Amino acid sequence: MKLHNFFRSGTSHRLRIALNLKGIEYEYVAVDLRTEEHLGAAFRALNPQALVPALVTGELTLTQSPAIIEWLEERYPNPPLLPAGADDRARVRALAAIVGCDIHPINNRRILEYLKKTLHCDEAAVEAWCGTWIQAGFDALEELLAADERRGAFCFGDAPTIADVYLVPQVESARRFKVDLEPYPRIVAIDRACAELDAFRRAAPAAQPDAR
Amino acid sequence: MKLHNFFRSGTSHRLRIALNLKGIEYEYVAVDLRTEEHLGAAFRALNPQALVPALVTGELTLTQSPAIIEWLEERYPNPPLLPAGADDRARVRALAAIVGCDIHPINNRRILEYLKKTLHCDEAAVEAWCGTWIQAGFDALEELLAADERRGAFCFGDAPTIADVYLVPQVESARRFKVDLEPYPRIVAIDRACAELDAFRRAAPAAQPDAR
Repeated sequence: MKLHNFFRSGTSHRLRIALNLKGIEYEYVAVDLRTEEHLGAAFRALNPQALVPALVTGELTLTQSPAIIEWLEERYPNPPLLPAGADDRARVRALAAIVGCDIHPINNRRILEYLKKTLHCDEAAVEAWCGTWIQAGFDALEELLAADERRGAFCFGDAPTIADVYLVPQVESARRFKVDLEPYPRIVAIDRACAELDAFRRAAPAAQPDAR
Repeated sequence: MKLHNFFRSGTSHRLRIALNLKGIEYEYVAVDLRTEEHLGAAFRALNPQALVPALVTGELTLTQSPAIIEWLEERYPNPPLLPAGADDRARVRALAAIVGCDIHPINNRRILEYLKKTLHCDEAAVEAWCGTWIQAGFDALEELLAADERRGAFCFGDAPTIADVYLVPQVESARRFKVDLEPYPRIVAIDRACAELDAFRRAAPAAQPDAR
């Protein structure tokens, strides 16, 4: 299995965590967003959307991290990253989607490039933009986490789920955009609990071969 | 089952289509985004993220349309909106996620309000913004659809899947933002095939009680 990805991309980070939690070995193929390698013909042949990550296994090329994570869960069910019941699964998927739909895609590279180049936003305006959507999502997440009386050390229950797989890269990005995490004690505690686990540590951007 | 939603919201439209395709009766509860009803205490008590839709059934409140659609698929498996095999399911989920992650959330109401009020974009700049992300997503979708030799009248195979559930509201939104659909003959044909089906027709924004 080959993971075409970039160390600092949040969606790439997500997939590395999921692969590690599942205990799946993969080959790391770096796609350098800094030199716009993802816009070149070679990567576009893998993914016409020209966004990392892409996971290639045999003849199959998988794109879109939410689809790939569900595929991993179906193909490699152990350990599970979703709880057993449909209602609980819906809760975990909703926590993940707050990050996956309503925070990350609004702050990714192509959007920030558009803000800078087309709308002529300066660095402060870009940071305010990112902070607004991260805070809006984290406000909702923190409230949902606080309301869950069954919750242990992670987003749901006592073991990592896809909600943690999505959350940890978003916390990394929040720190990069200098978002104050003081109002989010539960999110910070979950991030800390995940950092105890080897699967999360090995997936961190700074631990990747293209991080420099 | 009560669907708290707004006629013109793309994520609400998505859920109405999925509920109709599954043959599930629901009570329509309008949340008026024009008067910011979604930001009020009553709706926030249902969904701390203050975004429509929310689906309430008994004691359970479901939020985030991708999570709700997967829940519907698990609880009401017939007719299925995902194909049988994991690889095909990943393809359909990826098509859906192109809309659900990389088009819709970037063009939704709160983002456009920020562009207008905080970044002082005029109407033309807002339309250019929406057009950019719709076109980027539709370019990828059209290419992926063109490459699928097994495809029939819909996004995948010969029956509607969640990919169509996501695509049709996005085409509606593209028309509203005056995106030229000429370069997307497959997307337009799929939209037309869906419009033949009662489940899609009854879900259309113009057919809802709060459309006026």
